[in-house]
Amino acid sequence: MNNNLNRNVHTFIGCDKEYDESEIVIFGAPFDGTTSYRPGTRFASAAMRSESYSIETYSPYLDRDLRDIKVFDGGDLVLCFGNTEKVLCEIKNFTELIVSDGKLFVMIGGEHLVTFGAVQAALQRYPDLRIIHFDAHADMRDNYLSEKLSHATVMRRCWDLLGDNRIFQFGIRSGEKEEFEFSNKHNFINKFNFDGFVKTIKDLKDEPVYLSIDLDILDPADFPGTGTPEAGGVSFKELLSAVFEAMKLNIVGIDICELSPPYDLSGRSTSLACKLLREILLAVAKK
Amino acid sequence: MNNNLNRNVHTFIGCDKEYDESEIVIFGAPFDGTTSYRPGTRFASAAMRSESYSIETYSPYLDRDLRDIKVFDGGDLVLCFGNTEKVLCEIKNFTELIVSDGKLFVMIGGEHLVTFGAVQAALQRYPDLRIIHFDAHADMRDNYLSEKLSHATVMRRCWDLLGDNRIFQFGIRSGEKEEFEFSNKHNFINKFNFDGFVKTIKDLKDEPVYLSIDLDILDPADFPGTGTPEAGGVSFKELLSAVFEAMKLNIVGIDICELSPPYDLSGRSTSLACKLLREILLAVAKK
Amino acid sequence: MNNNLNRNVHTFIGCDKEYDESEIVIFGAPFDGTTSYRPGTRFASAAMRSESYSIETYSPYLDRDLRDIKVFDGGDLVLCFGNTEKVLCEIKNFTELIVSDGKLFVMIGGEHLVTFGAVQAALQRYPDLRIIHFDAHADMRDNYLSEKLSHATVMRRCWDLLGDNRIFQFGIRSGEKEEFEFSNKHNFINKFNFDGFVKTIKDLKDEPVYLSIDLDILDPADFPGTGTPEAGGVSFKELLSAVFEAMKLNIVGIDICELSPPYDLSGRSTSLACKLLREILLAVAKK
Amino acid sequence: MNNNLNRNVHTFIGCDKEYDESEIVIFGAPFDGTTSYRPGTRFASAAMRSESYSIETYSPYLDRDLRDIKVFDGGDLVLCFGNTEKVLCEIKNFTELIVSDGKLFVMIGGEHLVTFGAVQAALQRYPDLRIIHFDAHADMRDNYLSEKLSHATVMRRCWDLLGDNRIFQFGIRSGEKEEFEFSNKHNFINKFNFDGFVKTIKDLKDEPVYLSIDLDILDPADFPGTGTPEAGGVSFKELLSAVFEAMKLNIVGIDICELSPPYDLSGRSTSLACKLLREILLAVAKK
Amino acid sequence: MNNNLNRNVHTFIGCDKEYDESEIVIFGAPFDGTTSYRPGTRFASAAMRSESYSIETYSPYLDRDLRDIKVFDGGDLVLCFGNTEKVLCEIKNFTELIVSDGKLFVMIGGEHLVTFGAVQAALQRYPDLRIIHFDAHADMRDNYLSEKLSHATVMRRCWDLLGDNRIFQFGIRSGEKEEFEFSNKHNFINKFNFDGFVKTIKDLKDEPVYLSIDLDILDPADFPGTGTPEAGGVSFKELLSAVFEAMKLNIVGIDICELSPPYDLSGRSTSLACKLLREILLAVAKK
Amino acid sequence: MNNNLNRNVHTFIGCDKEYDESEIVIFGAPFDGTTSYRPGTRFASAAMRSESYSIETYSPYLDRDLRDIKVFDGGDLVLCFGNTEKVLCEIKNFTELIVSDGKLFVMIGGEHLVTFGAVQAALQRYPDLRIIHFDAHADMRDNYLSEKLSHATVMRRCWDLLGDNRIFQFGIRSGEKEEFEFSNKHNFINKFNFDGFVKTIKDLKDEPVYLSIDLDILDPADFPGTGTPEAGGVSFKELLSAVFEAMKLNIVGIDICELSPPYDLSGRSTSLACKLLREILLAVAKK
Repeated sequence: MNNNLNRNVHTFIGCDKEYDESEIVIFGAPFDGTTSYRPGTRFASAAMRSESYSIETYSPYLDRDLRDIKVFDGGDLVLCFGNTEKVLCEIKNFTELIVSDGKLFVMIGGEHLVTFGAVQAALQRYPDLRIIHFDAHADMRDNYLSEKLSHATVMRRCWDLLGDNRIFQFGIRSGEKEEFEFSNKHNFINKFNFDGFVKTIKDLKDEPVYLSIDLDILDPADFPGTGTPEAGGVSFKELLSAVFEAMKLNIVGIDICELSPPYDLSGRSTSLACKLLREILLAVAKK
Repeated sequence: MNNNLNRNVHTFIGCDKEYDESEIVIFGAPFDGTTSYRPGTRFASAAMRSESYSIETYSPYLDRDLRDIKVFDGGDLVLCFGNTEKVLCEIKNFTELIVSDGKLFVMIGGEHLVTFGAVQAALQRYPDLRIIHFDAHADMRDNYLSEKLSHATVMRRCWDLLGDNRIFQFGIRSGEKEEFEFSNKHNFINKFNFDGFVKTIKDLKDEPVYLSIDLDILDPADFPGTGTPEAGGVSFKELLSAVFEAMKLNIVGIDICELSPPYDLSGRSTSLACKLLREILLAVAKK
Repeated sequence: MNNNLNRNVHTFIGCDKEYDESEIVIFGAPFDGTTSYRPGTRFASAAMRSESYSIETYSPYLDRDLRDIKVFDGGDLVLCFGNTEKVLCEIKNFTELIVSDGKLFVMIGGEHLVTFGAVQAALQRYPDLRIIHFDAHADMRDNYLSEKLSHATVMRRCWDLLGDNRIFQFGIRSGEKEEFEFSNKHNFINKFNFDGFVKTIKDLKDEPVYLSIDLDILDPADFPGTGTPEAGGVSFKELLSAVFEAMKLNIVGIDICELSPPYDLSGRSTSLACKLLREILLAVAKK
Repeated sequence: MNNNLNRNVHTFIGCDKEYDESEIVIFGAPFDGTTSYRPGTRFASAAMRSESYSIETYSPYLDRDLRDIKVFDGGDLVLCFGNTEKVLCEIKNFTELIVSDGKLFVMIGGEHLVTFGAVQAALQRYPDLRIIHFDAHADMRDNYLSEKLSHATVMRRCWDLLGDNRIFQFGIRSGEKEEFEFSNKHNFINKFNFDGFVKTIKDLKDEPVYLSIDLDILDPADFPGTGTPEAGGVSFKELLSAVFEAMKLNIVGIDICELSPPYDLSGRSTSLACKLLREILLAVAKK
Repeated sequence: MNNNLNRNVHTFIGCDKEYDESEIVIFGAPFDGTTSYRPGTRFASAAMRSESYSIETYSPYLDRDLRDIKVFDGGDLVLCFGNTEKVLCEIKNFTELIVSDGKLFVMIGGEHLVTFGAVQAALQRYPDLRIIHFDAHADMRDNYLSEKLSHATVMRRCWDLLGDNRIFQFGIRSGEKEEFEFSNKHNFINKFNFDGFVKTIKDLKDEPVYLSIDLDILDPADFPGTGTPEAGGVSFKELLSAVFEAMKLNIVGIDICELSPPYDLSGRSTSLACKLLREILLAVAKK
Repeated sequence: MNNNLNRNVHTFIGCDKEYDESEIVIFGAPFDGTTSYRPGTRFASAAMRSESYSIETYSPYLDRDLRDIKVFDGGDLVLCFGNTEKVLCEIKNFTELIVSDGKLFVMIGGEHLVTFGAVQAALQRYPDLRIIHFDAHADMRDNYLSEKLSHATVMRRCWDLLGDNRIFQFGIRSGEKEEFEFSNKHNFINKFNFDGFVKTIKDLKDEPVYLSIDLDILDPADFPGTGTPEAGGVSFKELLSAVFEAMKLNIVGIDICELSPPYDLSGRSTSLACKLLREILLAVAKK
C-alpha cells in the first residue's frame, strides 16, 4: 500500500508518539452536561487538535520542541450526556490506567466538573495530593439547585476528599458570599490574581500536586471563548509565568478546562489554549 | 406609585392573561442536558419571548388575534442540568398542575426529551392518549450510549408507556436502521413528509391527542437554528397546514422543541417558532 | 500620471457610465432611523456595491449585459439620523433631480420609509402614479407609537397622497388586523403571494407605475438578511418572475429596501439583492 | 393558584425589590436613533437583564451583596424611533419621577444621547449639578450634519445647560480638533486615561454629581460590543477603580451607555456591563 | 496496551475500512488558492469529517448502511498554496494511485479547480471519459485575469482535454456571455435546473462518467456555506434525485466541491454535504 | 450636472488629494494566495476604506489632521490568485512608479508576502535599505512545503536580497527552531516585545528604512482579526509608541499586513488598523 494512503491519525501537533514509549498522555473529556449557562466546552478538545496545526512545535519561551519529547494523544473519551456520575466514573477509570502506568496525564475539558474524576484517580495513588486551582470562579458551592455534582461545586467535592489546607486557589473573582467564606476558612484562596503564588510554590515543594486550570481565570480580553466570561482576570503572560513556576513542582496530573470554541469566531481562544498546552508539555517533560 | 413604574412582566406577545381566566398555559422547559451534539435549546423559550415582539398578535391566516383569546405565560421552569430524571419529574409535576386545572398546555423546549415528562402527565389523565410526532429523527433508539433517557430515545420511552399503534410519526428522515424497523412494526411512520397525514387525522378523530413538534422536521433552509439540521425537510407552509389540520382534533397537550437560537444569527428561526406558536394558539383556542 | 493611479471610483458592477449619457440612475438612501426592531439597512447600498463584484454583468435569464446599457451610480445620499422629516426631504429633492432630467431612478434603501420621499418626487411629475408594493408587512398603520412617519406607516402615508385604488400590495403576511381591513377597503391587497398579479399588470398597462420592493417579501430561507424576517414568503424565482412582468409596464421609479447585511454572515442576501438589481436594470432598460 | 405559576417578572439579578421600599431605581432607555455608524445599543438593557443571571449577586471586590440592598428595576421605557425630541422628553419625564421621589436613578442606554434627557431632570433638582464624563469620544460637536441632538453632540448640549467648568471628561481619545479645543477651553478634559481624576474627586467633594459612563472608554480588547470601538482605551480594572472613587461623591444620577450586544457574539461585553452595574449599585447604596 | 488507548483515527463516519479491502476511496483536496472572492473551501473536508458524526450511517432513502459497504478514507492531501500547477499535479498523482488499483475515488474539494487534477487521472485510464457537471457557474472562461488555471476556467481546461460533446452541464445560472456561447456550441448546457437530465442519463449509458458536483448548484437557501452563493438554484431534493440517477451510470470518479464552512455558522451546509456524500457512497457501491 | 451627482470616489478618510500634489501614496495589495491557514486578508484594504469613516481625521495623539497633509489613495491593485510570482511582480512595478516619483508609499496587505514585492522596488532606489520588521512570526523559513515564496518565508527572501545585519525584528514569538537560530545569526531579532528598539532607532539614524508591520505582532486581545492569532503580543499603545519612534527615521516605505476582517465581527480590528494608519500618515508627513 502506498505511503500516502495511510490512515488519518488525528493528534495534537507533535504529540504523535506511541503510548508505551511516552511519559505524558493527553486526552479529551468532552463533557459539559452540568454547564448551567452557555454550553460548548464539549467541542474544546477536538477544536484544539485541529487548531494546533496553526502553531509551531517549537517554543521560543523554553527553547524546546514537542518533537523532542514523548507525548501520546489518547484521543477523546466517549462520554454520555445525561448521566453525570457515570461520566465521572469513566474519566476516573481512564485516568487510573495512565497513572498506574507511571505516566503523567493532561486532561482537556470539557467543563470543570471533569476535574473531579481525574482528582479521584490521582488521589488513589497520591494520598497526599494537593490541588492548585486557577479559576475566575470559586466552584465551592455545596450544591447547585440541589445537585451535588456540578461545575459550580467541583472544588467543594474535591475538598470533601482532601480536606483542609490542601487546595490553593488563585484568580478567583466570582462566587457566592458563602463560597468565599468557606474557602477562606478551609483552603488557601487568593482573589483576582496570583498574589501569594510564590509562597504556595515554596510550600508545596515536596508534595504531589494536581494543577487544575479553568481557563476563565484569564481576562475575557485574552480569552473570550468560554461560557461565563468574567471581567477583571489575569493576562496570558501572567498565567504562563505561573504555569512555568508550577511545573517545577512534583506535578502528577493536569487539566485545562472551560474552553468553549463556539463563542469565539476568531479561533484565538482555541489557539491560546493550544499554545498553553504546548508550553505545559514542554515545561513538565523530563529533560 | 406611577403607572410607568410597574414591574417588568415578561411574556410571549399577547399572552398576558391571568392564570385563572386562561384556557391555555404556555411555559418553557429550558433543558438540553442530553443533547449529544450542538447544545443550545435551553435558550429557546427566553429567546422566543424577546423575539415575539417582532411579530404581530394578529394572524392573517386565521383572521384571529391573540388579544382576543385567553393565554397565560407561566414563564420557564428552573431545571437543573446533570440530573435527567429529576428534570423529567419536574416537568411532569408542573404539567399535571395545568392538566388538573382543565387547561391546555403548550410546552416550549428545550431538547426533545422534555416531551417525555409532559406525556407522562397527559397520559395519567387521558389513558387513551395518542401522540402525533413531527420530526426529522425517529428518536426510537432503545438507548443512547447505554442511557435510557435521551433526546434520541424519547419516542421509544413514550412507546414503552403507550404501546403499539398509538404513535404517528411524520417527516422522519434520519435514524438507525433498527429505529425505522421498530417504528414500521409498532407505530405509524411516514418518511420525509406528511403523506398519510389526512388519514391519520381521520383515524384520530375521537381520541385525545398530544402533538409533539420537533422543529427540525423543517428543512434547514427554513429553520437553521437547531442542533442537528437535516437536509430534505418539509417547508414552513407544509408544517403550518399540517398543524392547522391537527388542531381540529381533541388536542390535550402540545410541545415545540429543538429551537437552538445561538446557531442562527439572523434570529429568523426564533421568529418562525414564534409565528408557529401564535398560529397554534389561535387555532386551538375555543372560539 | 500613470493609468494605474486613477481615482478609486466605487460603483455597482457595470454601472459606470456618466450621468449625462445614462437613462437610469441608481443611488443609495442609507437610512434606518425609524426601524423599530433590528436596524442595519443603512449598510445595504455600500454592501451591495462591494458584493456586486461577485456576480457577473451578464444575465442568462435575459441574455443581456450591464455593459451594454447606460446606468449611472450616484453613490449614497448623506442622511442624518435623528431627523426623519429632513431625511425624507433630502430623498425627495434628490429624486426630483433625476426625474426632472427624464431619467429613471432606482433607489436602494435603507428601511422602507425612504420610499415615501421618492414617491413624493415621482407623484409631482406623474399625478396618476400607481404603486405596486411587494412586502411581507402591510405598512398601513396610521401611526406607530404616535409617530406618523415610520417604516410601519409608509404605505399609509403614500395612500394619504394617492387615495383609493392606486396601491397594489402583494405577498403581505403580517400586520395588525386594522391594517388588513384598511387595505381591503382602500387598496388592492393580496395576502401571502402573487395571486392576482397578472390581472394587476393588465389593469396598470397604461399607467405610470412606481415599484416598491421590500425584500422581506421573500421567504427568510431565501433572504435571511433583513430586520424582521417573516416565515412563509415567496421564493426568489417567484419574485423574479413578478419583477420581469412589472418591468413591462410604464415604470417611472423603483426602490429595493430592507436588506440588512449584518444579519447574514454568508453574504448571500446581499448577493441576491445584487442579482435582483441587475435583472431589474436589464429588464427595464430601453433596448 | 400554585406558586410555580407566578407571573414571569424579569429584572436585573438581585434588583427585585418593590419601588416604594427602594433607594435606587434602574431602568433602560433603549434608543439608538441618532447613532451614525453601527446601531444596536437599543438591545443593551434587555440583554443585560438576561445575561445578569450568569453573574452572582455578591461582589468579592466590596464584600457586599445585591440581596442586601434595595433596588427596583423599572424595566424599559417604550421609546419611539424617528422623533428624537420626544424620546428625550420621555426620558426626562420618567427620570423626574424617580428624582422627585428622592431616589437615585441608574439609566442603562441606549446611545449616549439619552444622557441629555436624564441630565435635564437632574439639573432641575440640583442646579449646581456637575457631570463626570467617561468616554472615548469628546461628544462636543455643536452639531452633527446640522442636527443639534446627536450622540456626537450630547456633552455640548449638556454644556449649553451647565456652562463652563462643570463637565469633567476622562479617557477621551477621539474627536474633531474643534471639540478638543472647545473642551480645553470650557471643561476639564483629560485625554486617554484617568490622569487628574484624584484631583477631580477632591474638587467635587461637596457637589451633586452626575456620572455618565460611555462604555467605549474601555479598550475594545475589554469591551468589543460597542458601535465605534476605539483602540487605546482604559482597562476594566482602571474603570472599576475610578467608579469606586466616584461613588464616594454625592452621586445624584448615573448612566451606562453604548453597549451594543449584537457586535459581541461571546456575550462578554454584556457580562462586563452587568458586573460594572452590580459594583456601581453596591458601591453607591447606603450602608 | 489498553483498548481505550488506541490511536485517534479520524475518518468520515462509517468509512473505516482498510485500503486494500475497499472498493471506494474518499480523500480531501483542501485547496482554494485561486478562489477570487471568499476563500474557505480549504476547510471543507476536515469540517465534513467532524460533522459527519452528527448524521447516521444508515440511509432511509436507500435502506442501506455505510457499515455494510467498503470505503477507505485516505485523509487529506497536503497541498501547498501559491503553486497551482504543483497542486494539480499532486492531485493527479494521488488519484492515479487509486484508479490504477481499480478503485473508485470520491474527492472532496476545495475549490472547483481541483477537479482538473482528478479528471486528468481519470482520462488516462478512460479515454472516452464524459463529465457530468453540476454547478451554478459555467466555469468556461478561457482565462481569469490572464491565468489559465482558475476555479473560473476549470471546465474549459477539461474541454481542452476532452473536446466537444463530452461535457454535460446542469444548473448553470451565472457566467459571462462568452461562456454561455462557448458551452452552447461545444457542450451540452442546461441553464438553471435539471431539464434534459433524463436524456443525458440515457445517452451516457455505456460511457465512463466523471461526476463533478459544485455544491453551489444548490440554492443558497439550502446551502449558504459557499463562497459565491447564487440565488435561484436547485433544491437538495432535486440534487439528490439527479445524483441517484447519475449513480446508475458507469461512474469512474466523483468530486464534491465548494463547501466553505466558515460562512455558515449553523453547520447545516457541512451537514448537507455529509448527507450527500453518504447517499453517493451508498448509491454507487456494488450491491 | 448637479453637485450631488458626482462620481462615488472611495478613499481612506481624509486621503482625497490628487496624485500629483501628494507626498504620500497609499494603496492596497489584496492578496492572500499563499496563506496556509485562515485566509481573508484580501479583504483588508476595502474594509479599511469603509471603516475609516468611523474614525476622525484628527489625531489627539499628534494634534494633527489628515485634512492638512497630502495623501493620495491609489485604490487596490487587481491581483490574480494562483500565480504568486506575477502578483509580486505587479506589486513591485506599481511601487516603483510611486518611488520613482519621489513619493512615499504605504501599502496595505494582504498577507505578509506582499512585502517582498515592495521591498524589491525600494531596494532598487535605496541600495542601503534596512528593514524594521514587527511581527509575531519570524517568517524566516527557507521554504514552506518546498515553496520559496510564502508568507512564512518572506523575511528570508528579503534577507536573500539584503544580507546580514540589515533586518531588525521585534515582537517575534512563533517560529521553528531553525528560524530563530537563523535570525539570531544573521539579523537582529528581539523576541516577544520591543526591547532593544531604542538602540535600533539610534543605529538606523542615517539609513533608508522600510517598516513592515505584520499586525499580528499585537496581542489577539487587541487585534483578533487576523489569520494566525498568537497569544502574548504587544499592546496597541506599545505598538503606537514604537511606530512614532520609527517615523523619526528616514522612512522610504511602509506596509501594514495581515488584517483579516472576516474573523472579527465587531469590526474593531479593522478600526484599529485604520487608526494606526492615520497615525502613521500624520507622523511621517512633512510638517
